[in-house]
Amino acid sequence: MSAEHMMSQTIDDLVVVIPAGGVGSRLWPLSTPDRPKFLLDLRGTGSSMLQDTVERLSPLTTHMLVVTGQRHASAVRAQLPDLAADRLLTEVSPRNSMAAIGLAAAVIEHRRGPAIIGSFAADHVIGEPEAFRDSVRAAVEVAREGQVVTIGIEPTAPSTAYGYIRQGEPLADHAQAHQVAAFTEKPDADTAARMIGQGDHVWNAGMFVTRTDVLLGHLERLQPTLYAGLREIAVAWDTDQRDAVVERVWPTLTSIAIDHAIAEPVAAEGGMAVVPGQFDWHDVGDFASLASVLTPNADGVVTVGRSAPVVTADAARAMVVGGDVPVAIVGLDDAVVVHTDHALLILGRDAAQQVTRASAALPD
Amino acid sequence: MSAEHMMSQTIDDLVVVIPAGGVGSRLWPLSTPDRPKFLLDLRGTGSSMLQDTVERLSPLTTHMLVVTGQRHASAVRAQLPDLAADRLLTEVSPRNSMAAIGLAAAVIEHRRGPAIIGSFAADHVIGEPEAFRDSVRAAVEVAREGQVVTIGIEPTAPSTAYGYIRQGEPLADHAQAHQVAAFTEKPDADTAARMIGQGDHVWNAGMFVTRTDVLLGHLERLQPTLYAGLREIAVAWDTDQRDAVVERVWPTLTSIAIDHAIAEPVAAEGGMAVVPGQFDWHDVGDFASLASVLTPNADGVVTVGRSAPVVTADAARAMVVGGDVPVAIVGLDDAVVVHTDHALLILGRDAAQQVTRASAALPD
Repeated sequence: MSAEHMMSQTIDDLVVVIPAGGVGSRLWPLSTPDRPKFLLDLRGTGSSMLQDTVERLSPLTTHMLVVTGQRHASAVRAQLPDLAADRLLTEVSPRNSMAAIGLAAAVIEHRRGPAIIGSFAADHVIGEPEAFRDSVRAAVEVAREGQVVTIGIEPTAPSTAYGYIRQGEPLADHAQAHQVAAFTEKPDADTAARMIGQGDHVWNAGMFVTRTDVLLGHLERLQPTLYAGLREIAVAWDTDQRDAVVERVWPTLTSIAIDHAIAEPVAAEGGMAVVPGQFDWHDVGDFASLASVLTPNADGVVTVGRSAPVVTADAARAMVVGGDVPVAIVGLDDAVVVHTDHALLILGRDAAQQVTRASAALPD
Repeated sequence: MSAEHMMSQTIDDLVVVIPAGGVGSRLWPLSTPDRPKFLLDLRGTGSSMLQDTVERLSPLTTHMLVVTGQRHASAVRAQLPDLAADRLLTEVSPRNSMAAIGLAAAVIEHRRGPAIIGSFAADHVIGEPEAFRDSVRAAVEVAREGQVVTIGIEPTAPSTAYGYIRQGEPLADHAQAHQVAAFTEKPDADTAARMIGQGDHVWNAGMFVTRTDVLLGHLERLQPTLYAGLREIAVAWDTDQRDAVVERVWPTLTSIAIDHAIAEPVAAEGGMAVVPGQFDWHDVGDFASLASVLTPNADGVVTVGRSAPVVTADAARAMVVGGDVPVAIVGLDDAVVVHTDHALLILGRDAAQQVTRASAALPD
């Protein structure tokens, strides 16, 4: 297959799953439980994180599923008018990522038989979509052989905001792919610097590409109760029994992240592979991260979602999000100002991870 | 006269003049040209600086004049409904403090003959009004003898925000009163510390108490053109010629501060006295100064003019003025947030004097 052909063609047996969950609480007051991060036009581009995610993945497949909470179903439908009704799976309550992705896998298998699924969060920023899709294509090829595959981002700095993956032995027949030797949670600064120095660590972007039968096989073995529950729901999903089965079974499902349920134990058994991602990727978990993906104006000021002027005096690296009145920032470096109809946040960029401490203290 | 009698009695020949001018531009966006500092309820007490000033001086006299710009006349009338119509002198354009106070002195003399006037700014905060009034009474006694008298505030710190007065020889027969040896503009920190160390300096609060004939005599000698113009306007003031004379003469008046026109040259001639003021006094020229006159809540947060909650995390000494949405301040010490319908100011308290740099840069 020519490179050009490969780039333009969708992958027949790939189903993309987009778990659209998580509030993004460190992006309060922009993000709220009613208006979580994935629904936001965080960068002021005119499209939401979710819409960008769908757009980015569309060249790879004609088959996409979005999994989201019932609370956000109507907002997701409004943002994705082309998504067929049966491609939106709604959860009656949050049961963590394993239930969301496992439900999608089970529904896909029940509807059309085994396929390859690629699960990608609805709220990440990716700067080079074609390079991203190349990594997904490479991951699909590895996944065909029975591995659970993740895409590991080549680190550009010793970030403490991301988890890391240590790469093990290279895979035969798959250039640049490696076994996953281990997953590491968000490290402290010293550990991050050490891992970057070793040269064998990549960032864990939470992307998973795997055959549905492989994923569900691991799940049956490692979380048999959760597996059985998801299978029962999947069988009923497209029938008039769905509500009754969901009502009975869903609340009983184990709430566990796919990282703990599948990725870590399967990696320990040698069943996980990592494909490198050499594209610009950001989780945008807080306002410091958001500032880093935006371009300052001539005054060095980053603005999002506003047109009224921002002026500064003795105030380097200011960022102003939202609001419709002029803003002046004086004598404070690295200030972040977030102005919504419901709240006003004034933040020192270095304290971006502390936002939830303040928002949690506000009365509802 | 008993002390009690003295405290309760008004002074028959004292006319209080309140020049209500100046924007207070370092208090932007709270203060604006349309809503200057003296009209504001800066401390959230329910009354404006101007109303507080009138209230504070009322026990001293039944005769008060307010001098303000035409632009603010209706707002002043609304705030001071008991002020008789002829007690409000309006200026068609700003001509600095000498024209404002000189016009008042000339109108008073023309209306009722020589009197003692006391001029007090409309936008100062005074914590102990009875101690203040005692100083005014003492100043009136000195002024009767022909001196131009000011009240000098005993300094509590080596402030660089105020001008200073060096006290000269004590006056015979007036306990604690001194000749004014010299006026000093706002000093740098070293100079301020040195002056405080010398023990003979007091703050210049811009208060003047003098006989109208003494003031106008100095003016006639030192600023003869300005004097003649003010006399001509005063004669016409209560006639149907007022508008015509004002229109012709007012724009020609020299624009000069009373400090330069009278206080400094008269002090050099030995004609100025200073009476000590041992009361809590603040010019409240900027938000740092405003913060210092307010009482923090249990969280160490100062709020003014708002009821919505303020929460902080890693943010000491926060101050929030105005606004009706909850405010969270995270990771920034000494932050001042001022939220009006027209603008939002985010300020580091140490940069309070820099506010005009930012507000001046905003388009109108």
